Amino acid sequence: MIRKIRVNELNNYIDKEISFSGFVDAIRDKKWVMFVILRDNTGKVQMTIEKSDENNQKLLDIMNDTSVDSTVKVACKVLKNDAVKLGGIELIPTDIEVTSRADTLPFDYNNLDGVNIDTRLDFRWLDIRNEKNMLARSVESCMIEGMREFLYKNKFTEIHTPKLIGTASESGSSVFEVKYFNDKAYLAQSPQFYKQMAMAAGMDRVFEVAPCFRAENSNTNRHATEFTSFDLEFSYIDSYLDVMDLEEDLLIAGLTKVKNEYGEKILELFGKEVIVPTKPFPKIKLKDLYQELHDRYGFDIPKEDIGDMNAEAEKLTYQLAKEKFNSEFMFVIDYAATKRPFYHMRENGVLQGYDLIWRGAEITSGAQREHRYEELVKNAKEKGLGKDVEFYLQFFKYGCPPHGGFAVGVDRLTMLLLGLTIKETQFLFRGPNRLNP
Amino acid sequence: MIRKIRVNELNNYIDKEISFSGFVDAIRDKKWVMFVILRDNTGKVQMTIEKSDENNQKLLDIMNDTSVDSTVKVACKVLKNDAVKLGGIELIPTDIEVTSRADTLPFDYNNLDGVNIDTRLDFRWLDIRNEKNMLARSVESCMIEGMREFLYKNKFTEIHTPKLIGTASESGSSVFEVKYFNDKAYLAQSPQFYKQMAMAAGMDRVFEVAPCFRAENSNTNRHATEFTSFDLEFSYIDSYLDVMDLEEDLLIAGLTKVKNEYGEKILELFGKEVIVPTKPFPKIKLKDLYQELHDRYGFDIPKEDIGDMNAEAEKLTYQLAKEKFNSEFMFVIDYAATKRPFYHMRENGVLQGYDLIWRGAEITSGAQREHRYEELVKNAKEKGLGKDVEFYLQFFKYGCPPHGGFAVGVDRLTMLLLGLTIKETQFLFRGPNRLNP
Repeated sequence: MIRKIRVNELNNYIDKEISFSGFVDAIRDKKWVMFVILRDNTGKVQMTIEKSDENNQKLLDIMNDTSVDSTVKVACKVLKNDAVKLGGIELIPTDIEVTSRADTLPFDYNNLDGVNIDTRLDFRWLDIRNEKNMLARSVESCMIEGMREFLYKNKFTEIHTPKLIGTASESGSSVFEVKYFNDKAYLAQSPQFYKQMAMAAGMDRVFEVAPCFRAENSNTNRHATEFTSFDLEFSYIDSYLDVMDLEEDLLIAGLTKVKNEYGEKILELFGKEVIVPTKPFPKIKLKDLYQELHDRYGFDIPKEDIGDMNAEAEKLTYQLAKEKFNSEFMFVIDYAATKRPFYHMRENGVLQGYDLIWRGAEITSGAQREHRYEELVKNAKEKGLGKDVEFYLQFFKYGCPPHGGFAVGVDRLTMLLLGLTIKETQFLFRGPNRLNP
Repeated sequence: MIRKIRVNELNNYIDKEISFSGFVDAIRDKKWVMFVILRDNTGKVQMTIEKSDENNQKLLDIMNDTSVDSTVKVACKVLKNDAVKLGGIELIPTDIEVTSRADTLPFDYNNLDGVNIDTRLDFRWLDIRNEKNMLARSVESCMIEGMREFLYKNKFTEIHTPKLIGTASESGSSVFEVKYFNDKAYLAQSPQFYKQMAMAAGMDRVFEVAPCFRAENSNTNRHATEFTSFDLEFSYIDSYLDVMDLEEDLLIAGLTKVKNEYGEKILELFGKEVIVPTKPFPKIKLKDLYQELHDRYGFDIPKEDIGDMNAEAEKLTYQLAKEKFNSEFMFVIDYAATKRPFYHMRENGVLQGYDLIWRGAEITSGAQREHRYEELVKNAKEKGLGKDVEFYLQFFKYGCPPHGGFAVGVDRLTMLLLGLTIKETQFLFRGPNRLNP
């Protein structure tokens, strides 16, 4: 077991002698007393060193020689003291060991307002010490945990599909090329083909949380060349409505967990309320959506995007969802087949897939997949896809149940949940000009 | 919610009319009756079509025209029938829809003995239909679930570190190079540096389950160019003994879950018992281990490996663990600093790290890390590491708590648990000559 006692566990150690470790968060040197604020990632606690006690001179000397952001290990007694603002607890040390020393920091992570984002990313480990950024890390982990719990409960199998692939599948233009011994490999843009392979294998229900790679040379607040995707796929569905239904459950599970564990803290630090949606989310056909956006907001989709959405349409769709349906989420259905991948099922020309809009952006594309070999071959041909997808088409030749699924961008979820940019959201952002640290 | 009723849930639907979907596992056409065995990934069930009933002619026609491994959706009544060997249940269909048709399979996945491993991998989705291979997928997922549950309970944060990195760190020789716009990137061999960055950020306890990449042109039963690593790191440890202690807990959690859920099935199909170890695992110093291996087995470590292990030593160490300690696990400590990475801590020349041996192979390297900037710089220099680790050294300049961690290969765990080769274990094996499907 882990022996470290965390700040939020100190209440269990009142009047006990313990060892406590943490970062030095602040030193307040008063006339009669030195207050040292210590920190771990569950909170802060005050250590009190009385100057009147001669035995404390050694401890005062140590702390006078120690910079903020250094780390210490303290032998101390835990006292209850209602006068102490930080949780009504103080630590009275008998010994202090400095376990690491901090140089002068390049910026004040408690006040990032004037700090250039690139400087912040150059020193990301200091940037994360900021209370909001630290919370973002916990929130992301918690959201994924909630979603995973839901899937485990529903007997999904977690898979790990290869990121090194032999052919530049799906959309060759934005794929990274890897030197692979005397050959070439590519980095997977998504596990799409492989989670469908699992369906053909008869694995019934699978999911994966893993990196995806997109060689897109665009610098926006939303895009990254590497991001974490939460992918799932399951068999024996009747239609894409089953997929949407599952996604509702999944997001509700994740958001419920986040609200329970961090809802108050998110409201306090980010001013954002975590709203757990209720089922069913509103659904709208693309054609009807166009009409609504025209009538309400005077917005008309540009000609080249007809049959699809664009960034502006996503923003307004969110507005519509809130105004008309009192919902933060809205499914958009009936996209044009020409605008969607060849592996989405069509029925009488109608695409059996959807996008999900949340807080002004698309967070998911989902669909029933085409599992019938002949239909799939036809669709692939129509899109001009040849050799690159041949290996994939084979998956459907030896029996494959009807199935569907979707992907959610983990970073994008966290970003929208907290109102951050993608650079602030990823543990370590990766873009065309950013590969370090 | 998911509407599909699974084979292992049919008991809840006795005498009910339901819809059941699955693969056609077998068709047994008798004189008076046709038995169709249906399968999903929880088991098999018998569908009975009586030939005496004229209304069944249409169903018989459908099934006569349907190959094994096709998928069907059946409207049926669930009956209890103790005469039926498969779970005492039979399905009486009123309608059958063939949802996909199977071509003749290239091999019989129920009998893989004579099938070349490359053929199996070429058609991996058929290979996985084999009952043992399907079980392996569930077992791997279950093991990881058990380990994750343990870490969530202990308030670890899950992170997603970048796989695209700017410098060929750690050991440049075996790193994959990526064309990155007009520049070069590399694929991460491990998240080591980044999980330590999380420690410097004050994240206290982190873990990651993600792909790692090694450009090693070796074809063995153990190595792959891409594999899944279960990595963790945590702060405020007193020594590497804390790390070993946590690894014991973690593996016990994972193996307990596997034993509870799949122990019997693993014994039945693989002839392997899942043994949940007890704490503490035996520990042995490398020097003493050499002596034991010499005395017991006449084995002497080759000169070039002194201070380290090799494959033969790992095998014999497992034998020793069983014979002397009645344990499947054994920690080996006191490796030579020259044989270990520069970021492992040393104390008075003694390396503060360990390897864990299980079933004849090393499954983990763990250590307390060197968190003191000056020491780290010295160690890096000694190993001849320069510019490539400079970004990493910065992590330790602004305060960083003492910390340690380890990595476990997920594929290797599963492989040893079930007695498979690496090619049979990975969802899709990746090696120097294998990038497809």
